[in-house]
Amino acid sequence: MATIVVLGAGMMGTALAWPLTDRGHRVRLVGTHLDTEIVHSLRERRHHPTLDLTVPDGIEALPETGLAEALQGADAVALGVSSAGVRWAAKELRSHIRPGLALAMVTKGLVLSNGALGTLQDLFLSELSPEVRGALHPVAIAGPCIAGELARRVPTSVVFAARDEAAARAWADLARGPYYRVRTSSDLLGVEICAATKNAYAMGVAFGSGLIRAARETGGSIAYHNYEASVFAQAIWEMRQWIGLYGGDPESALWLPGVGDLDVTNAGGRTGRFGALLGEGLGTREAVERMQGATLECLEVLGILRDALAHLDRAGRLGPTDLPLARHLCEVALQGAPIQMPLDRFFSPLSR
Amino acid sequence: MATIVVLGAGMMGTALAWPLTDRGHRVRLVGTHLDTEIVHSLRERRHHPTLDLTVPDGIEALPETGLAEALQGADAVALGVSSAGVRWAAKELRSHIRPGLALAMVTKGLVLSNGALGTLQDLFLSELSPEVRGALHPVAIAGPCIAGELARRVPTSVVFAARDEAAARAWADLARGPYYRVRTSSDLLGVEICAATKNAYAMGVAFGSGLIRAARETGGSIAYHNYEASVFAQAIWEMRQWIGLYGGDPESALWLPGVGDLDVTNAGGRTGRFGALLGEGLGTREAVERMQGATLECLEVLGILRDALAHLDRAGRLGPTDLPLARHLCEVALQGAPIQMPLDRFFSPLSR
Repeated sequence: MATIVVLGAGMMGTALAWPLTDRGHRVRLVGTHLDTEIVHSLRERRHHPTLDLTVPDGIEALPETGLAEALQGADAVALGVSSAGVRWAAKELRSHIRPGLALAMVTKGLVLSNGALGTLQDLFLSELSPEVRGALHPVAIAGPCIAGELARRVPTSVVFAARDEAAARAWADLARGPYYRVRTSSDLLGVEICAATKNAYAMGVAFGSGLIRAARETGGSIAYHNYEASVFAQAIWEMRQWIGLYGGDPESALWLPGVGDLDVTNAGGRTGRFGALLGEGLGTREAVERMQGATLECLEVLGILRDALAHLDRAGRLGPTDLPLARHLCEVALQGAPIQMPLDRFFSPLSR
Repeated sequence: MATIVVLGAGMMGTALAWPLTDRGHRVRLVGTHLDTEIVHSLRERRHHPTLDLTVPDGIEALPETGLAEALQGADAVALGVSSAGVRWAAKELRSHIRPGLALAMVTKGLVLSNGALGTLQDLFLSELSPEVRGALHPVAIAGPCIAGELARRVPTSVVFAARDEAAARAWADLARGPYYRVRTSSDLLGVEICAATKNAYAMGVAFGSGLIRAARETGGSIAYHNYEASVFAQAIWEMRQWIGLYGGDPESALWLPGVGDLDVTNAGGRTGRFGALLGEGLGTREAVERMQGATLECLEVLGILRDALAHLDRAGRLGPTDLPLARHLCEVALQGAPIQMPLDRFFSPLSR
C-alpha cells in the first residue's frame, strides 16, 4: 500500500484515484488554483462536480496550499494539471523530488524547441536541477481512457511509457487492476506524439459530422462515415510518419496509443464537437465561442504542428504535399481556410 | 465511355452505379433471383427500395434472365452478389468471359481449403476453365464504403486490389471520380482478409454498446468507449497477424482496408446491432432472431476463422493464447460462451 499524490483535481487526475484506491493505496488529491470549486465540493460533500460522482473513501482532497504537506511521505506522484501548468508544477514539486520518486503524468502535449519535438516529460525535467533530473524518469500515461468511464470502473487498457521502461513498470505495478489494464512502453516520444496529435486529428475526423449537418440543410446525404473513415485512416498513417521523423517508434501509432486513443477521442467529447462546428462552416473564432471556454487541446497541438511543419519544410525534410492532413487541419483551424480535404494526397510515403 | 454490367442489385452493387454513370459509363444492373422486387421497382419507378433513392438515368435494370443479353458488348463486369452467390455467379458468367475482361467484385469473404485461406476471387477463378483463368485477374473492391453514402455522393476512398495490380488500375481508371477516390494494391489476400475479418471484429467492438445497455439496468456506467477502443486496436493488431500468417502484406491492415474499413463498419449497420445484442447478454440464436433475417457476414466469417484457428493450432503455427480476440469472438458467437474479453492477452506478438 502506497501513498500517492495526484496534483490536479480535474477529471483525469481524479479518475486515476479510482484504480489507485481500489488497489488499497491512499491518494492525496491536491487541486491547483483552477480547481478551487472542485476541492471545495470534494471536501464538503465528497462529490466531484464534473465527473458527477462521489469519490472513494481513500481519497483525501487538499487545496494547492496543502501540496507540501501532501508530499510528505509520498511514494509516488501523478500530474494531472493542464499542459500549460507543467512548468508551474515542476517548480512547485522540485524541492520535494528525491531521486527515484515514481512520477507519472496524465497531462498530454508536445513542445517544439529549436526544431526538436519534445515531450512534456522533457519540459518537466528541464525545470529540475541536473542531479535530480538524471535520476527521475517521468512516466506518460496514454492510450484510450475517458476519465468518466475509468471513474465508473469501465474496463480500460492504457499504456505507461517512459524512456527507462523500468520506471513505467514501477508505476504500472502501482496502478493496474482488474478494470485498469496497463501496458508499458519505452517509446516515450512516440506515445506522446500519438497522445497529443490525436486531438488534432480527431478534430479533422469530426469535420464529417459538421459537413453532414450543413449538407442536410440543402437536402443532402445521411452520413459522412466514409469520409470520416478515410480521415481516420490517414490520421494513423501520419502519426507513424510524425513519429518516424522525430526518431520514435512508429509502431506506437498502431495499437493503444494511436489507433485506440484516436478511436476513443472520436467517440465523444470537446474535440469532436469543435471539429463538427468547423465542418458546419463556422470559423475558428466563432466555433471557439460556441464551445464556451472548453479547453481545446486540438488548437494547442495544431500550433505546435504548424511550427514543426514549417521547420521540417525549411530543413528540406518534407516535400510540400507531405503530411497533407496535418497541413490542411492547420490551414482550416489556424488560418481560416475552407475545408477541402486533400483526399487524393492521402496514404503517400514521405517524399524526402 | 464503357458499358459495364453489375450483377447483383443489392445496395453495394447498385451504389457502384453512381460513380460509374457519373463518369459517363452505361451500367446494366442485373438482379439475381434474390433481387426480384428491387428490379421490379427499378424498372417501374427507377427507385431502389433499400437505398431509398432514384437511380441515375444511365442505369438499365434487368432481371437475371437478361444477363446473357446484358453481357453482350460489355467492357467490364462488377459482381455484387452475396458471398454464397460467387460460385453461382462464376457459373453464370463463365461462358461469357473472354480473356482480358475487367472483372471486379464488391462481394467480400474468405474461403478455407485444406488449411489455405483463399479469397472469393480465387473461388470465382476455380470455376473457370484453365485458359480463361490464367488471363483473368479479378479485382477486389475494399475499404470504407457504406453503400448509401456512395449513392449520395459522399466523398469516399476505397482500394481496388488484384494480384496483377494492372487489372486493379484498369478498373480504377473506369471508376474513380471526384467523390470516389480509388487507390490500388497488389495485396489481394491481405486486403480481402481485412474486408472479411472486419465484420467479425466490428461485432466484438459492438459488445461495448450492449454491455453498457445491460449495465444501465443495474445503475452502471455512461459508456464503454474505453473498452471499445481497446477491442478496436486489438482488431487491427490481429488483422496484421492474420495477414502475416497467410503470406499477405500486413501493411494492408494499417490504412483504408483495415483501419478505415473497421472504423466505418463500427459507425453503424447490422454487424454493430448484432454485436450489441450479444453484449446485452442474448445468445446468438436469440440475437439472430432479433435481426429478422438480416445477412450477418460476421457469423459467416467467424466460422471460417474458427476453422482456420483449429488448423493453425494443429499445425503448431499458433500458441493457445495467440489471436485472443478472434478466439473469444468465436467462443461467444459460435459456442455460446459468456463475454469475458481477454484484455490481458491483447497486443502480444504471436508465440510461435
